[in-house]
This record gives sequence, C-alpha cells and structure tokens, in this order.
Amino acid sequence: MRGKDKLAVVTKTLNYDEKIIILNTEDAKKLEIKSGDKIVLTNVNNTSLKAIFTVATSSDMIDEGAILIPKNLAEKLSLKDGDLVKISQTHKPESIELIKKKMAGEKLERAEIQTIVNEIVSGLLGKTEIMGFVMAQKYAGMDMDEIESLTRAIAESGESIEFKRPTYDKHSIGGVPGNKVSLLIVPIIASAGLLIPKTSSRAITSPSGTADTMEVLTNVNLTLEEFVEVANKVGGALIWGGALNLAPADDIIINIEKTLRIDPIPQMLASIMAKKMAAGIKTMVLDVPIGKETKMESIDEAINFARLVIELGNRLGIRVQAGITYGEQPVGHNVGPALEAKEALEALIDPKSAPASLVEKSCSLAGLLLEMSGKAPIGMGHKVAKDILYSGKAYQKMKEIIEAQGGDPDIKPSEIEIGQYKYEVYAPVDGFVTKVSNSSINQIARAAGAPKEKGAGIILHVKRGRKVVAGQKILEIYAERSVKLQDAIHVLESNPPVIIEGMLLKTVPERTIYKFPQESYSQGSNSE
Amino acid sequence: MRGKDKLAVVTKTLNYDEKIIILNTEDAKKLEIKSGDKIVLTNVNNTSLKAIFTVATSSDMIDEGAILIPKNLAEKLSLKDGDLVKISQTHKPESIELIKKKMAGEKLERAEIQTIVNEIVSGLLGKTEIMGFVMAQKYAGMDMDEIESLTRAIAESGESIEFKRPTYDKHSIGGVPGNKVSLLIVPIIASAGLLIPKTSSRAITSPSGTADTMEVLTNVNLTLEEFVEVANKVGGALIWGGALNLAPADDIIINIEKTLRIDPIPQMLASIMAKKMAAGIKTMVLDVPIGKETKMESIDEAINFARLVIELGNRLGIRVQAGITYGEQPVGHNVGPALEAKEALEALIDPKSAPASLVEKSCSLAGLLLEMSGKAPIGMGHKVAKDILYSGKAYQKMKEIIEAQGGDPDIKPSEIEIGQYKYEVYAPVDGFVTKVSNSSINQIARAAGAPKEKGAGIILHVKRGRKVVAGQKILEIYAERSVKLQDAIHVLESNPPVIIEGMLLKTVPERTIYKFPQESYSQGSNSE
Repeated sequence: MRGKDKLAVVTKTLNYDEKIIILNTEDAKKLEIKSGDKIVLTNVNNTSLKAIFTVATSSDMIDEGAILIPKNLAEKLSLKDGDLVKISQTHKPESIELIKKKMAGEKLERAEIQTIVNEIVSGLLGKTEIMGFVMAQKYAGMDMDEIESLTRAIAESGESIEFKRPTYDKHSIGGVPGNKVSLLIVPIIASAGLLIPKTSSRAITSPSGTADTMEVLTNVNLTLEEFVEVANKVGGALIWGGALNLAPADDIIINIEKTLRIDPIPQMLASIMAKKMAAGIKTMVLDVPIGKETKMESIDEAINFARLVIELGNRLGIRVQAGITYGEQPVGHNVGPALEAKEALEALIDPKSAPASLVEKSCSLAGLLLEMSGKAPIGMGHKVAKDILYSGKAYQKMKEIIEAQGGDPDIKPSEIEIGQYKYEVYAPVDGFVTKVSNSSINQIARAAGAPKEKGAGIILHVKRGRKVVAGQKILEIYAERSVKLQDAIHVLESNPPVIIEGMLLKTVPERTIYKFPQESYSQGSNSE
Repeated sequence: MRGKDKLAVVTKTLNYDEKIIILNTEDAKKLEIKSGDKIVLTNVNNTSLKAIFTVATSSDMIDEGAILIPKNLAEKLSLKDGDLVKISQTHKPESIELIKKKMAGEKLERAEIQTIVNEIVSGLLGKTEIMGFVMAQKYAGMDMDEIESLTRAIAESGESIEFKRPTYDKHSIGGVPGNKVSLLIVPIIASAGLLIPKTSSRAITSPSGTADTMEVLTNVNLTLEEFVEVANKVGGALIWGGALNLAPADDIIINIEKTLRIDPIPQMLASIMAKKMAAGIKTMVLDVPIGKETKMESIDEAINFARLVIELGNRLGIRVQAGITYGEQPVGHNVGPALEAKEALEALIDPKSAPASLVEKSCSLAGLLLEMSGKAPIGMGHKVAKDILYSGKAYQKMKEIIEAQGGDPDIKPSEIEIGQYKYEVYAPVDGFVTKVSNSSINQIARAAGAPKEKGAGIILHVKRGRKVVAGQKILEIYAERSVKLQDAIHVLESNPPVIIEGMLLKTVPERTIYKFPQESYSQGSNSE
C-alpha cells in the first residue's frame, strides 16, 4: 500500500448490517483502494486494536485526510474524533480455496476449518463466501471429524465460561410454538441442588423465544459476570445469550443462513454444541420435537440427529441424552411472550390445574437430567421432577431466579399484561379437531405483534383429538394495537389454525376473482 | 407502513457495492423500518420512477424528514435535492421458495425462473440469496428447458438490439492469456461483407480483456446508439459491452460468482447466450480452449460443453458452431493490453511475419463464420479468411473500425507505448521448453500492472517444444512503474512461467527459514 495511510477519525452514528467506513474519494485513489474493498484499520495509539472494514467512498461526506467511522465500531477500537488510524490492506482470505475444497467434496482438516471460522469472525470473508461455505456443507456434507473441528472453532471464536460445579442444561431444536418448558425445567433442576445456567435465544421466526418469554417476568439482559454470579448464587439462571459474545461465529453464520432459511445438519450440530461448550455446559438433555411442520418429520430422522449430537457431545466432553417429543401442536395453550410467561407461572404455582402437555413434557425432560446427575434413579426422574414441581419448591426457586436477575419475585400471573384487543374464533361445525397447524399459529401470533409486542399472542382452547360443538370457542387472538389485530385476522382467514373434521376449508365463488401479483419494482433505468 | 412516509431528498456522493440510502433513526422508527431492510423509493413527481434500496440509519448524518440518497442512484430516479420521495415496503421476495425448490432438486418453470431473475435485477434479492441460487444450480443442476428459461430471462433483463442485417459474432470462453484473435477476426469478417458487431468484456482475472486491448487503439466506451451506428456503417465494431445495459442480470450474478470463482455450467451457458441474444446476434462461432490451466481440462468436456451451447442456440434461434482450440500456452507472444494490441496490429499489417498461433487460430475461427454465412464453401473458410488477411483488406477494415469508434486509423505499432521498465529472463540451462504456464504468466503480468496500466505485460520469446540454449532470452516483463516491475519479479521467482527440461525449479537451502503467516486480524472486542 502506497500513499499517506494515516487518517483522522470522524465518528457518526451509522447503523448498517455490514461494517463500513467512508473514505474520501481522493484518499482512496491515493491509497489504491476501491469501494467494496476490505481494509484493516489500526488505532495508531494502540496497535493491538484493529479490525476489518468494507470501504465506501465519498467526495462530500468526508474531507480529505479524514475517515468516517460509525460510532459503535469506533468504540470497539477505542477511537474518538481526531484520533489517527492507519489503513492497511487485508491479506487475501485463505478460506476461498478451502471452501472450494469442501465444495469439491474433500475433507477439511481441523486447521483449515479453524482458518475459515477465524476469517468469518474477523470480517475478512464476505456474506456470499459464507453462504458458499454453508451450501457446501449442505451438498458435500461433513464427517464427524470435520463437525467436531467446526464446533471447536466456533466455540473458541468468543468468550467462554468455566463453572466450578458440574453444569446441566436443556436445549430444544425448536419448531414448536408455545414451548415454554424451560421456565419449568430450570427451577425444577435448580431445586434439586444442581447448577443449570441457561442461556436462551430470542425468537427469529417464532412468536416467542424462551428469552422473550422470560423477559416478561424479569431482566434477561445480563452481562457474562452477572450471569455467572446469579447462577452460582441461586443454582439457576435463564437469560438471553445473545449479548455474552459466546461463539459469535455462530451468530454470523445463522444470520446468513436465515436469508434462505437453510441450516445444514453439520452447521446445526456445530451451532448447538459450540454455544454449550462456550457456556461451560457438561451435561445436557436435548429436546427433539417431531412431526409435520417441525424440523424433524419422522422419528427415524430425529433418532439419527440425536445420535449425531450424542456422538459429537462425546468428543467434546459433554454428556447428552435426547428426548424425542411430540411437536405437531403447541405445548400448553398459550402462544406469545406474555401469554406463555403467564401459563408457565401458573403451572409453577398450581401444577395440578396446568395443561398436561406442559407439565408432562417439562417433567420428562427434567427427569432425564435428574437421572443423568444421579439425583434420581433410572426410570424415576420424571416422578422426582413432578414431586419437586408439586411441592412448590420449583416455584420458590423461580422466585429466587426472578429476583436474582432483577425482577419482582412476587409477580402474579394476573398482573401480567395481555394485549387489550381480542378476537375470538368459534367452531363452525360439530366434529373432532383433526389438526392444529403450528405454522398457521406462528403466522397469526406474529401478525398480531409477537414477539416484539409482548402482550400479543394466541390462546388455543382446543387441541388435536378434542370433540367440539358448533359455536364453541376454539381460539382467542390478543394484540396490543387494533391494527395488528386486523393483520392477524387477515392471516387467520387464509390459514386456518384449527381444522375440524367436516369443516369447509374454503369456498370457491361462482365467479372467481383473480388476484394479480403485487406491483413489481424495476430499476429506475429500465423500462420493464 | 405507517407514519409519515414522504421525505425530502439530500444527495451526496457515496460509492458502495450495495444500493444504500440513509434514513434518520427517528424516521426509521416511525416508519417501522430497521437498518438492513429493503424498501422501495418512489419519486413523488413521477411515480413510475422507483427502485429498491437497502436502509442504513443515522441520527447525525441526516436530519429528520430527510433522506440521504447517493447521487448516482438519485440520478436514475431523476431526483435532486429537496425533491420528495415516498417510502414503501417491498413485498417479500417470491424467489426464496423458488430457490429452495431448486435446492431440493425440483425443476423450475419458465415463470418461476423469470421471477428469480426479475427479483435479482430489481434488487429485492440479496447477495446471499443469489449465491444460494448459483450454488443450487451447481449441485442440483438444470435441464435444457430451465437453462433456456434462464437465458431468456437474463436476456430480457435490460436493453436489446435488433440489427437489420444478419449478424455474426465470435465468443471465447476464455482462460488463455494473450488471446487477441478478435482483433483479427472482426476485420476479416467485416471485410467479407458480413456484419460483426462485437461487444467484449474487460479483464476480471486476466491481464487483458479484448476490450482492454482494443482500447489501446481506439475508444471502446460507446453508447448503444453509437455502437449500432458504427457497426451498420463499417460492418464491424469492437467495443466494451459493460456500459450498454445488455442482460444486466448477468453482470450482477457474475459479480457474486467471482467471490468464490465458481461458474456452474447452466449459469455459464445462460451468461454467454443471454448477452448474444440481447445484442441481436444470429450466428456465432464459439472458441473453446482446452488443456491444463484453462476452463476445460479435456476434449470430451469441451465437446460436451460445445454441444450444450449449440442446443441452447438452436432453441434461441442462434446458430452456433464451436471450435475447440489448444489453450495450454498464450496465443502469440505478447500478453498485456498495449503489447497485445501491438502484436495484433502488426499481424494485420504484416501477417506473414506474425506468430503462426495467432494467424492460424484467427483464420480458423473466422473461417467457420465464413462457411456458416455461405461466403466460403465448407472446408475453404480458413483459406478465404487467410486470403482476406494477406490481401491487406482486413487491415484496411480495422482502420475504418478504429476511426469510426473515434481513434486514429493511422496508428503504427511502433507508436504504441510499452512500459519503460523492463526485466529480461534468460534460459538457465540448455534444453527443450516442456511447459509454459498460463497461470504464472497471468499472475506476473497482473503484478506488473496489467490490465490497469496498459503498458504492463510480458513478451514470451519461446513456446512449448522449442529448443533453447543456456543464456538465451526467453521472456521480457514490462511495467510502467519500477515498483510494479519489482512486484512482478517477486511473483516470477516463485512461479516459473517457462519450464525447460532439466531446469532446477527450486533449491532448498541447508537451513530452512520458515515463513510465518501474515498477521491475523481479530475483532477489536475479542482477545484472540
């Protein structure tokens, strides 16, 4: 690199999904840098602070001799206005050849996978290359050696936690709405005297992630230090894991995957286990819901997947037992952050009045952990878990957790605010419920505002197999804003969430009105 | 979309590889738009002018009520400072499901492929989704129906040209340095009274694209109207096709493909033929160079590929004949824009002194076109082409083309400026040349500054099979700047471009110095 390469920092707020900096066009020319190039910025006062950015150029947004850096990125490099930075070229990513090697079906060595993950985290690899890596995993596959290497590399891409006592965890691969079982399992396990420091995610495509639900009851945005402190103090914690910088490579890859909603098995395995490894988990139970509209369509597929997780856990020193569960309809009745938190809290307070699906699933999975820990004899875990729940100890423990994380331990289910706008759905005919559609329930609840608007969601009054009579209430939709309730009703109309035997699904009028596609958008310069 | 959605335009120069606009953070909140969202901007004075952009947000780069639009993008929408734009939400891309369908190995219908290409061109699909589409083509493949649909959709994505006379063209799939044959073929064909309106590309990874080479002799940046006028007037033209907006979808896809240097066969076929279709070409000859370090390693692979192009051409109404050529070393002796232009001009002026590889390849390919047109009997095309070249008519035609495109028709080979910095390479031993490496020659010429610095390049004094004696000059490197010459020499040392039987390729010293990898870059916030 030639030319003057020390520039004065100007910071501005700029939120964008790629880390861009803006160079004056003339400076860029002198430095032989083009828009779209990746460069390394180094803080000249502390040369260990550096990071990779993509270059945009401008002649009128930034003066010559200066460089515009988004504030949040400048903070990471401890830069303030007027500080000097050095610009240098990035080396060519080595990962390109390695991704091409994987694309050709060859096996990648541990160091090669490490290189790819390092270059993903450093920002050297662009989004298209990362998508290429994910697609290569999908089509060329990976063997268990490669998956282990990938998991270790991702686990080591950020912070890691080491607890002093043995740690337990429960993980669900997801796909089922209303799955609030962690809010029962964590306090049950902690009540048994075990350490269960649980990190959860927020919803990406579902109406409520466990972190969204827990947030209705208490603070879930803890720092790594606070999280460890809470867990050590009360034996359990249930927080949002996204701010802890555990396995950040995973977050980057997931963001790319979600654009096409793909998640190849090797990446899925690495994603689950890298987070556990970084969080210091040593024993876990894996919930694999099966059925239509879940991630695993058949029991064979679920067993095969579970075996892979167990084998990978073995290699990583994490004991894993899997529970394959029924996932074709919501767990319990409530869907949406506030409604799910309410249902979970009610179940902790008064388990005998709670939905069987919620209590049984929670106690089954908690039971497996109790058996693995030796706290319950084999075959007795479910009973021990249920005893803890019915004794009220789990509720007391939940209050401790809520308080330790900064919430009000005395919060009552009736105090949880539910959206004030409501729409009720009635059975149109007599008959049996033959189907409850997860995807329809997801879409309706999200249209109603969940998970962002915590009071939005659904109460499902009937489950599969139940007999209903015409006019019986089968569903309620809640929203915080009337316009969102209308959106949800609109989605409901074309996606029936509950199918009753004999019910008409759609009528075709005598004269069909064809709907034309939405307006299409052309580039300004094109005629079509 | 709710809230105030008409914003005043502020234009600034901003060059970036994605089309971004900057919204004030407060406006974005009111409009429920997040950074990274795609939105439609519509010129409120002319609502047919609209385009899709990605949103970045800022609280201090743009005031509330205003929107910052990069100048070049504002121009396309006829927007100037103070104009109002309307912001609306994009519809969800339909292509996601279609790409997933292709990923699952299913066949896509014509309308489905059309939808994908439309959404690529409109900007609705992001880079990762486009990479997913390319990778799906690579692994799931496409049948000829799908390839035809893809080609037609890409051809229709921009402008198209219709000539009044039958049109001829020559296309090379590339991979061989020094391939300046178009500079001979175009004037030969035009001299025969045929219309050959040739568009070429600039180098992406090679030391000189045909457009870069031609630019040494004349202007190649013509508008569509100028191009058509020149071609109709003198019967031939040789310009850069990149500014004509022919098949713009192809350019977008190629930009994504190049990040991983992939080009699946369906996309490669569609890319070649869509450009020809849009350019109004009716008859073409396809040059398929084979051999190591080219795009086709074996003759079978080349024949198979050629047959696919011919079949696709058939479906599109474009007659295609393929010539499979030897591509394991440069055509002629010169590599780099000015050196190649010089060698081509010399061959037109004095063909009997020109390298046989250049004259023979040019006349063979031109001969095929002459035979297809009926200007030469089958089997006589090569002879007729050579007669035209030797008669001086091709040189006269080239002068007309140079002049019509805006250059000096009397330019002499000796007037073409070659880089003033020179490095000579001598044979270290007696022996036969067993290999000339395309990739090494490419890398050296590019390190010397080609194609950007037009005087940079290589003269190769020996070709494969030639006997050389120790001390004989085998190669010259030219550069416009001494520092670039040093770079080229550096590349030369680790990548021998010419291998002579018996030559030592490398010596290993008694004590090996290990080179450590370049410094690795970590994110500012990580310890590792």
